[in-house]
This record gives sequence, structure tokens and C-alpha cells, in this order.
Amino acid sequence: MSEGPNVPGGPPYVAVIGSGDPDGQRDHLAEAVGRELAEHGAVLICGGLGGVMEATCRGAREAGGTTVGLLPGDDRADANPHVAVAIPTGMGELRNGLIVRAAQAVIAVGGGYGTLSEIGFALRTGRRVIGLGTWELARGGEADEGIEVVRDPAEAVRRALEPR
Amino acid sequence: MSEGPNVPGGPPYVAVIGSGDPDGQRDHLAEAVGRELAEHGAVLICGGLGGVMEATCRGAREAGGTTVGLLPGDDRADANPHVAVAIPTGMGELRNGLIVRAAQAVIAVGGGYGTLSEIGFALRTGRRVIGLGTWELARGGEADEGIEVVRDPAEAVRRALEPR
Amino acid sequence: MSEGPNVPGGPPYVAVIGSGDPDGQRDHLAEAVGRELAEHGAVLICGGLGGVMEATCRGAREAGGTTVGLLPGDDRADANPHVAVAIPTGMGELRNGLIVRAAQAVIAVGGGYGTLSEIGFALRTGRRVIGLGTWELARGGEADEGIEVVRDPAEAVRRALEPR
Amino acid sequence: MSEGPNVPGGPPYVAVIGSGDPDGQRDHLAEAVGRELAEHGAVLICGGLGGVMEATCRGAREAGGTTVGLLPGDDRADANPHVAVAIPTGMGELRNGLIVRAAQAVIAVGGGYGTLSEIGFALRTGRRVIGLGTWELARGGEADEGIEVVRDPAEAVRRALEPR
Repeated sequence: MSEGPNVPGGPPYVAVIGSGDPDGQRDHLAEAVGRELAEHGAVLICGGLGGVMEATCRGAREAGGTTVGLLPGDDRADANPHVAVAIPTGMGELRNGLIVRAAQAVIAVGGGYGTLSEIGFALRTGRRVIGLGTWELARGGEADEGIEVVRDPAEAVRRALEPR
Repeated sequence: MSEGPNVPGGPPYVAVIGSGDPDGQRDHLAEAVGRELAEHGAVLICGGLGGVMEATCRGAREAGGTTVGLLPGDDRADANPHVAVAIPTGMGELRNGLIVRAAQAVIAVGGGYGTLSEIGFALRTGRRVIGLGTWELARGGEADEGIEVVRDPAEAVRRALEPR
Repeated sequence: MSEGPNVPGGPPYVAVIGSGDPDGQRDHLAEAVGRELAEHGAVLICGGLGGVMEATCRGAREAGGTTVGLLPGDDRADANPHVAVAIPTGMGELRNGLIVRAAQAVIAVGGGYGTLSEIGFALRTGRRVIGLGTWELARGGEADEGIEVVRDPAEAVRRALEPR
Repeated sequence: MSEGPNVPGGPPYVAVIGSGDPDGQRDHLAEAVGRELAEHGAVLICGGLGGVMEATCRGAREAGGTTVGLLPGDDRADANPHVAVAIPTGMGELRNGLIVRAAQAVIAVGGGYGTLSEIGFALRTGRRVIGLGTWELARGGEADEGIEVVRDPAEAVRRALEPR
């Protein structure tokens, strides 16, 4: 199990995950996360659709960053307009695992069941998961500490980029 | 989003998911789940390795059932000895999504982060998830009711097989 | 690159690949291949649909064999009626690679472009490919000898099962 | 079956496929293909490794183009230095299908069995395949016309970009 790919000298790759349904306040956070990532020179990986994915891409692009969308379907036209590199995978929800695998750390902003699958996949494969208003996990009544809970986008990005 | 594949007249396919590390008491439950599934004529889908996967396959085989293991690696020899049909996928943890996709319902027995990814994937794709001592999920302090918590293997199997 | 998975003491797994469109004479060959495989105790892996896939499954089942269909779509009902274990992958044509990966050898009966992709994948990953009326490959005007051309189903199965 | 993803107003995405082993004369062609694609504003998709993949990325980058490498393994460091966006898929040779799916047309330069799998996959899914010194296909002694044979990199790129 590796901690996730990263290349010395290359830019960091960070995934931003969350629901495709729009939500003003939450999407405002996602946009700020994208902007911060771009300002730190990170490549943003996401699922390429709406909601959190669109907001975070918009933020990153406005700050001059690179955005990659790994789409569930076959059609590149499904990508939101702020995706710079759109990759239709045709794998459906299985592409959630590809998003995580392509990133060294994952920032979850809100999120539904698809986001939960990505959180599980990321923790399973040793990636850092930073949460902004996302799932709370417990087993046997005891909270699980796998997700690093943060208060704002700047802290989320700082954590995602710091060495483990 | 479909509720998951099932064929009129064919056997039901149910996934049993959980950690690959051995644990006596939990594996005892997993074995009983496998046995119950076989007695009800279900095909058991799992990840094909040890721990919960091995125990549930053993239970199913002892009751004459069919067991399918979708392995993460390239090597069929990784399968536990109670897997009847072993499919090496070479997709690593991405095979978690294939396990869920091949089943109409999912029974989680205990479980770590890999199991969490499967639970998320199953709930996202509209499958029933039945939990025996597995993850507890919440958002914003409110419990999520996606996982149907049951008390024993017989109830788990009854729920997994009943129409939704 | 491994030669493909196989377990000492376990049954051999052999893939039969070919077009999903029906063709009487060719499907007659595919059925005989399935029957021979079953008589030799092999598990038959295929794409689970019609044409060659259906014919070879029918032959195998009539001889008491195990047939596994790795389906491109999400719906188990797409499987032909002679598939014993049907696995919907939801990966579209990408499941061609899964079929090959799950087998130690591949028998191509006729075949279109999908079959060609499977032949390439099998040769790339070191599996034996046996051809019955299938593609002829060349580069720079020189025939490529990767596919072992045989004359009848019995020889195809004998080759698929012999150690390399 | 779609003809492959493409977005009105967005850049074309073209895959360049071929062996990872170095070969001076052939790699010279691949480099020219990359350069031509970049000069026409296309995004170059490839497997991200050496040989043809490295040469074509080098050509594209020198002309200011975008290069995407879909890697077979888990480690971004496997990418050649001319890949701008490196996506480790962890799917092994199955990533060949992802390369094709992400492109509207495929240019094969030379090539071994992996390239053959990509050609089959591309023809199966309705993409244009342009060949520069690549496989020659036949069935029953009759040449198959699926691959459009061209003489030089400029013609390859012109064909890959023209509407079908």
C-alpha cells in the first residue's frame, strides 16, 4: 500500500470530492478550496461534474490552476466548463476509485454516498483525507479519526499539501 | 441509477464484505451469513481473500452454495480455499466496486476502510446495505439511516433477500 | 508479466472469445469448444452475451461444466441462459481485459474488433491464444505467429490446457 | 456505440499509441505526430511511459501542447518527463481501454501486442484509427480496412482531426 503517487519536483495532485448537486454555501467553500490549491501550484483532480466539482474547478481556474475531470460516462460534454482536461472513463461510479488513486491527498467538502466511497477508498490506500463539513465515522460507538476535520479551505489545503 | 442486477427466475446474488484480517467472533458471524445465504439458494460474491471473506465462503460451501471471489490482484492462488469461482481482476482496491455491482444487496460484517468504500458505493448505486457490527455514519451530528442494522446473520440474510 | 493465473490442484480457467452476432457454422465450432472444455474440467470464462459466447456456454453446460459471463453492462439479465455465474461489470468494452485476465489461455472463434482487442490483451500479458478461423496478423508484410492456428475444437482445447 | 467523446468548442483529444521500447526511426515519427497535434491545438492522450509515448509527448510539449499520460501502475513517477498531466490508474494493461475511450481518434505508430489491443478497442468503439507502420489485419485471407494507413505524421494528424 503506497501513500499515493507524488513526484519529487512535480506539482502535487489533490482530489476535491463532494456531491454533484448544487448548494450555495457549501459550493462557496469548494470554490475557495480550488482557488487555494491553484495558488499553491497543485493540480486539482475531481469527478468533473456539477456541484462541489464545478465550484472547485471554477475557483482553481480563476486562479490559473490546472483542473482534471475524471468523468463517469463516455461523453466529454458532461464535464463542467471549468475542467481543463476532461477524461471520460465510461466506468460509472467505479471512477471514484480512479480519482482517489490519481491524488496524493483528498479534500471532502460536504458529500453524499459517492463521497463516502471515495473517503473509504482513500483511507484504505493510505491517502490523507481532509474533511470540511463531511461524514462523521464511528465503529462500536467510538469515533474514527481517519478524516482530519478542518474549519476552513485554507487549512484544508495546507493539510493536503504538507508531508505526512 | 438501478437497484442492482437481478434476474427473474435466477438465483439472487448477495455480496458479503468485511476485513481480510482474521477475528474469531466476527468471522463466526460471517460464516453463519454464508451458510444462510447458501441455504436460501443465493450466489455469494466477495473479495475472495481471508478474514470475513474466507469465513463466509466456508459457511456457504459447507451448505452447498456457490462462492465467487473477485480478487484485487492478478493471481488466482490468492483466493481462499472456499472460493468456487475465482476471478483475478488486477484492479487493486477498485475491485471493491465490482463486488458491489455484481450483487443486488450487500451484507457488511465488521469492516475497515475498504468495507467503508464498498458501503458508500452500494448506497450510491441504490443497493440495500445490511450491517452486522459495521460502520456508524452521521453528517452534521445526525445519524444516517442508509445502513440497515441487524442483530444476527439470519436477519441479515432475510433482509438481503427480501424485495425492496 | 505473468503467464496468467492458474492454481495447482484447481481447475483450469479458459476464455472463449468471439462475436456476439449469431453465425450457424461458427457457433457450431464454439459449442464444441465449450463441450470439450467442460469434459476436461475447465471453467469457461466469456463475455456472457450471444453468438459465440452463447454457443460455447451451451456446449459447456450440456457437458456439466461451469460457465462464467463477465458482462459489459449493469444488468445481469443481459446474460445468455447458459451462463451459470453472471457478473455485470458496468465497464463496457473494458471488460474484455477482465475476461482475458481471468483466464490462463484464450480460444478465439471467428471474431470482430472486440475479439481483436482481447487477442492483443492476451498476447500482451503472456497468455496463450488459440485461433479457430480468427484474425490473421502481420507487421511490415511479415506474418505474426502470436496466435496458434488450429483446425478443430478438440485441438484448440488440447492446446489451451497444455503447459506452455 | 458512440464515435467517441468530443465537445463542440473544446479542443480535440487524440491518442497516440505504440510500444514503450525505444526505436530511433519510429520514435522520430512519433515525435513529429506529437508536434503536429500540438500545432493543431489537440490534447494528446497516451500511456505516459517510454518509447513512442515519450517521443510523442516530447514533440507535443516542444510545440506548447498539453500531454496526458494514463499510467498502468500506481506511481506517478513512472511518467516520462514530457507528460504534463500524469494519471496513475493502477489498472495495468486495462488502462489501454481508458486511453482509447478518452480520445476521439487514435494514431498508432509501430506497435506491439498492447497497441493491437488498443486498435481493437478503438475500432470496436467506433473511433478512427490511423496507422503509421503498424499492424496489418486480415480475416479469411482478406485484408481488413479498419486501420487507415498513412505515409507521414502530417497526414496522420490531418486524418485524426477531420470529421468522419
